[in-house]
Amino acid sequence: MTDIGEIVRDIAEEMASRTDRGRVADYIAPLAEVDPMRFGLAVIEADGTCHLAGDAEAPFSIQSVSKVFALTLALGKVGDALWHRVGREPSGSAFNSIVQLETESGIPRNPFINAGAIVVSDIVLAGHQPREAVGEILRFARALAGEDAIFVDERVARAEQETGFRNAALANYMRAFGNLKHPVEQTLGVYFHQCAIAMSCRQLALAGRYLMLGGRNPGTGRSVVSAARARRINALMMTCGHYDGSGEFAYRVGLSGKSGVGGGILAVAPGRASIAVWSPGLNERGNSQIGTLALERLVQRTGWSVFEPNP
Amino acid sequence: MTDIGEIVRDIAEEMASRTDRGRVADYIAPLAEVDPMRFGLAVIEADGTCHLAGDAEAPFSIQSVSKVFALTLALGKVGDALWHRVGREPSGSAFNSIVQLETESGIPRNPFINAGAIVVSDIVLAGHQPREAVGEILRFARALAGEDAIFVDERVARAEQETGFRNAALANYMRAFGNLKHPVEQTLGVYFHQCAIAMSCRQLALAGRYLMLGGRNPGTGRSVVSAARARRINALMMTCGHYDGSGEFAYRVGLSGKSGVGGGILAVAPGRASIAVWSPGLNERGNSQIGTLALERLVQRTGWSVFEPNP
Amino acid sequence: MTDIGEIVRDIAEEMASRTDRGRVADYIAPLAEVDPMRFGLAVIEADGTCHLAGDAEAPFSIQSVSKVFALTLALGKVGDALWHRVGREPSGSAFNSIVQLETESGIPRNPFINAGAIVVSDIVLAGHQPREAVGEILRFARALAGEDAIFVDERVARAEQETGFRNAALANYMRAFGNLKHPVEQTLGVYFHQCAIAMSCRQLALAGRYLMLGGRNPGTGRSVVSAARARRINALMMTCGHYDGSGEFAYRVGLSGKSGVGGGILAVAPGRASIAVWSPGLNERGNSQIGTLALERLVQRTGWSVFEPNP
Amino acid sequence: MTDIGEIVRDIAEEMASRTDRGRVADYIAPLAEVDPMRFGLAVIEADGTCHLAGDAEAPFSIQSVSKVFALTLALGKVGDALWHRVGREPSGSAFNSIVQLETESGIPRNPFINAGAIVVSDIVLAGHQPREAVGEILRFARALAGEDAIFVDERVARAEQETGFRNAALANYMRAFGNLKHPVEQTLGVYFHQCAIAMSCRQLALAGRYLMLGGRNPGTGRSVVSAARARRINALMMTCGHYDGSGEFAYRVGLSGKSGVGGGILAVAPGRASIAVWSPGLNERGNSQIGTLALERLVQRTGWSVFEPNP
Repeated sequence: MTDIGEIVRDIAEEMASRTDRGRVADYIAPLAEVDPMRFGLAVIEADGTCHLAGDAEAPFSIQSVSKVFALTLALGKVGDALWHRVGREPSGSAFNSIVQLETESGIPRNPFINAGAIVVSDIVLAGHQPREAVGEILRFARALAGEDAIFVDERVARAEQETGFRNAALANYMRAFGNLKHPVEQTLGVYFHQCAIAMSCRQLALAGRYLMLGGRNPGTGRSVVSAARARRINALMMTCGHYDGSGEFAYRVGLSGKSGVGGGILAVAPGRASIAVWSPGLNERGNSQIGTLALERLVQRTGWSVFEPNP
Repeated sequence: MTDIGEIVRDIAEEMASRTDRGRVADYIAPLAEVDPMRFGLAVIEADGTCHLAGDAEAPFSIQSVSKVFALTLALGKVGDALWHRVGREPSGSAFNSIVQLETESGIPRNPFINAGAIVVSDIVLAGHQPREAVGEILRFARALAGEDAIFVDERVARAEQETGFRNAALANYMRAFGNLKHPVEQTLGVYFHQCAIAMSCRQLALAGRYLMLGGRNPGTGRSVVSAARARRINALMMTCGHYDGSGEFAYRVGLSGKSGVGGGILAVAPGRASIAVWSPGLNERGNSQIGTLALERLVQRTGWSVFEPNP
Repeated sequence: MTDIGEIVRDIAEEMASRTDRGRVADYIAPLAEVDPMRFGLAVIEADGTCHLAGDAEAPFSIQSVSKVFALTLALGKVGDALWHRVGREPSGSAFNSIVQLETESGIPRNPFINAGAIVVSDIVLAGHQPREAVGEILRFARALAGEDAIFVDERVARAEQETGFRNAALANYMRAFGNLKHPVEQTLGVYFHQCAIAMSCRQLALAGRYLMLGGRNPGTGRSVVSAARARRINALMMTCGHYDGSGEFAYRVGLSGKSGVGGGILAVAPGRASIAVWSPGLNERGNSQIGTLALERLVQRTGWSVFEPNP
Repeated sequence: MTDIGEIVRDIAEEMASRTDRGRVADYIAPLAEVDPMRFGLAVIEADGTCHLAGDAEAPFSIQSVSKVFALTLALGKVGDALWHRVGREPSGSAFNSIVQLETESGIPRNPFINAGAIVVSDIVLAGHQPREAVGEILRFARALAGEDAIFVDERVARAEQETGFRNAALANYMRAFGNLKHPVEQTLGVYFHQCAIAMSCRQLALAGRYLMLGGRNPGTGRSVVSAARARRINALMMTCGHYDGSGEFAYRVGLSGKSGVGGGILAVAPGRASIAVWSPGLNERGNSQIGTLALERLVQRTGWSVFEPNP
């Protein structure tokens, strides 16, 4: 029988020795300062068994991984009406591209590129104060993980805000098309804080369990979303979760996944495992280089790719 | 226990009564003449059990579904060197768009848009005569299906050739970047004939079995491709198999699939089933409208989506 | 001998009777409210002779025509260093397009599209307070015209600011590339106020005299710019002065010109005349429909096109 | 009084000593072989006075300069109906870009980019044999110049045809939109031969006289085109004659001009002079580097810029 714990340890060992670790994001100081040698891996199986390796308990900036939780929350608020304002197709361009918005009337291609996630923030905001909306997303992440020690890194949020001109451009652009309902500063306030949530691999894998379990949070026994919605979020993570590297991730790893520029990836093997990996160096598409490799290894040894005839 | 046969019959019955059947492709007469009411469905389970409904035995023009077989063949010839000439990312634009080629130096985004498939044809051609290359693809399809009654519809091939100016533009454009190795007419000759292959749903589902079975053709017991390659082709079909509607197909159906403008779709549920559906009316992205709906129903009732925690 | 006064009167008469007057800009109330029947024409000859017709004394919102004066001012401040931050080519796209900025690293194609004019505003701002910069542009326009009764329409400026999300997107986008040096709000403050300058056709034609006279302001007898610079500004107005309708304007009229969304056009016949026309209805490219036609007539009867072998 | 002859000699002398000569086009051997030190200049004044310097009598490949003559001829055949198939705006992209055709339904932006000139060739072809159409263009050039020693360089034409895949892509693409009426090979045959016409600077300047003289050929005393049409062709040369370097040429030189990849430029100073210059090295926009500089000098010393208040 496959010993997942051993596989996890083997992978952590191999990854520790890799020298091709990509480039740490350097557009804000709090990210640029992170040691490229950090590596964490957490695998939580369907029965709750948890395997940790490396820096799996160290909090890091989850950045765009938060888009999965924000989308889930927003769908809970407005249901499929969300899809009038955001598409469901891969973008074929960079995470922060504005070109597509011009040719497609301010409707972002999917909720996992920046423009789409900003619309999702706008939906979560829903007439509240930004502070409340951020609080709601944070509470949601805590409830999913079943842990309270999840926080917003204010230093990261502030830095994002100070340098987030491209995101401000995206937001203003969509506002011009009527696809933001709140003042740009408020919506971006929510967005930047949501991206600044810090979690450990263990917490992230815990929070992702509902996606492997048909929408059910095993911590509470309650449904976070319906099985159909969980399936659809997984589908979006597969086709759009890694920006313009989504095809490559599906090709190499074969799991639904969402990456963040902090070097984290949340991956889902439905019915098998919720997985979080972290290594801050990024490849040229902006996805964790060592993190992707670790997931590739994991899938090779477990056979968890959704594209395999699982036994 | 789920009775797949009953599900297949139910679906065929529902689809027969749908009136929103999309628009039949009309750029060439042989396609335009097809009755929009036609509908076929074939499901072959992992153990070989075969369920047919509607026009499952009627041959139709498989068009771009052939790109799966051509890619498999080309990978067999040149291996991963193929990926120096074709990408693996969703395109974010129409199946016949040329824009991306200009900004990305004549390298098509993936093997399932027209430009990518033309490069694949060029690889299959490999110094032979077009006639031989077409013969090889046809023999390959026959071997996969285990049936000899699969043929090239010469009337379709001729019509494609007479009106295929956009494909000629794509081919010449890539030739300008050195990404075609043969005279444009020869490569397009292979491409147009490959697209003109006619198969029934039953034959198509038979031919697709290797993708659900880790690369093994159960008819011969031999490996068509390695398990890893089968998995990767499935991944490409998931992220790129429905042109700029791939995200939507993953969202609604949750299976690897490849559509053709003739109204056919080949879908793969790894370890479960190889599925072919046909209904000639297309949605606005160029994918079979009723065919997609039929697959959505099938997955809802069987739980075969790869994004579900299968029991 | 050509009687310019008679020509001007004839044109005004013909234009008064035209029914195809285009569409008045309606993105802000102060523009939307303008009567589409308004028409003014002012022609000032090289010797100072002034011909007026219609509403030539009525002030209107000059909008983008102000970009000519702002550019002249900015060139006076930083000289040709300006061209490191702005290009000199026609854009081939709409006045407010953001696509080009993405592919060309935040450098706008020319100083007469919105993005380019925002950079020019940023240069005029040059560390001062927005209020001072606006004051400087206004004083410059007054000095050029030799009249003090030129003002900023605060209602227009406020409306621009409230709805100017696309311009905010452009500004933020360029800021992301480091091509704005001041806070976006400040630069846009200057830009929106500059666009809100109100002038009459007579004042506008007076202000444009330096462009027909090799850079010399006949009111003061002093050089505003060198002859070489005047020539080059005229060249930019010819190739870029009417957004994506510049080719058409050159084809039909054959003069250097700059249009504004308020329906004004400043046109220059070097050594002959400075011309201002106003009619608020716009054609599909955003340029005054009747204004363009009036200039076409004027050139037909005077032979002032720069593309003609003038006697 | 300005001594044009002296100016022409001075310029030729300066240009002979310049070392920054750009890069000779190398996509076909007959162009790649040309000595980058070649330089010719011919200025023909309105009264017929002719000034020659350097290699002004050496024939070179006029390439895209031929587009002016082909356009004139095509307008003579179909009049303004030509503008239903070709636009009149600068393209904002490279001479051989295909992107714009996709977004604008196969209508090229202007007759001086490759796509537009191919449509013009298609119009000249007008049901004849390609050989006849080429003959007609050649006879037209000879008639304009008043010289018979103008020929098609068959070696150039053949080389263009063998490597012209991008042009073949453009042609096929427009054919797909119904904007070519003849088989692609025939239209391209005309196009490639027209581009292969060889003329000397002297011949080219002679051929261009009608554009400075309101449409009249002083050799025959007859009108080639109406004054209005001559003016409009000049306008198109100003805004579109140097591909994506047209704004720069207008800015620096201030004359209507059309460049070719062989290093030739035809420039028109209405009522003053018809000018041809040749130097094979190209700048990064594909226009003659030394040729542009020579024209800049000529205009500085003569005051012939159309943007100057000429005395």
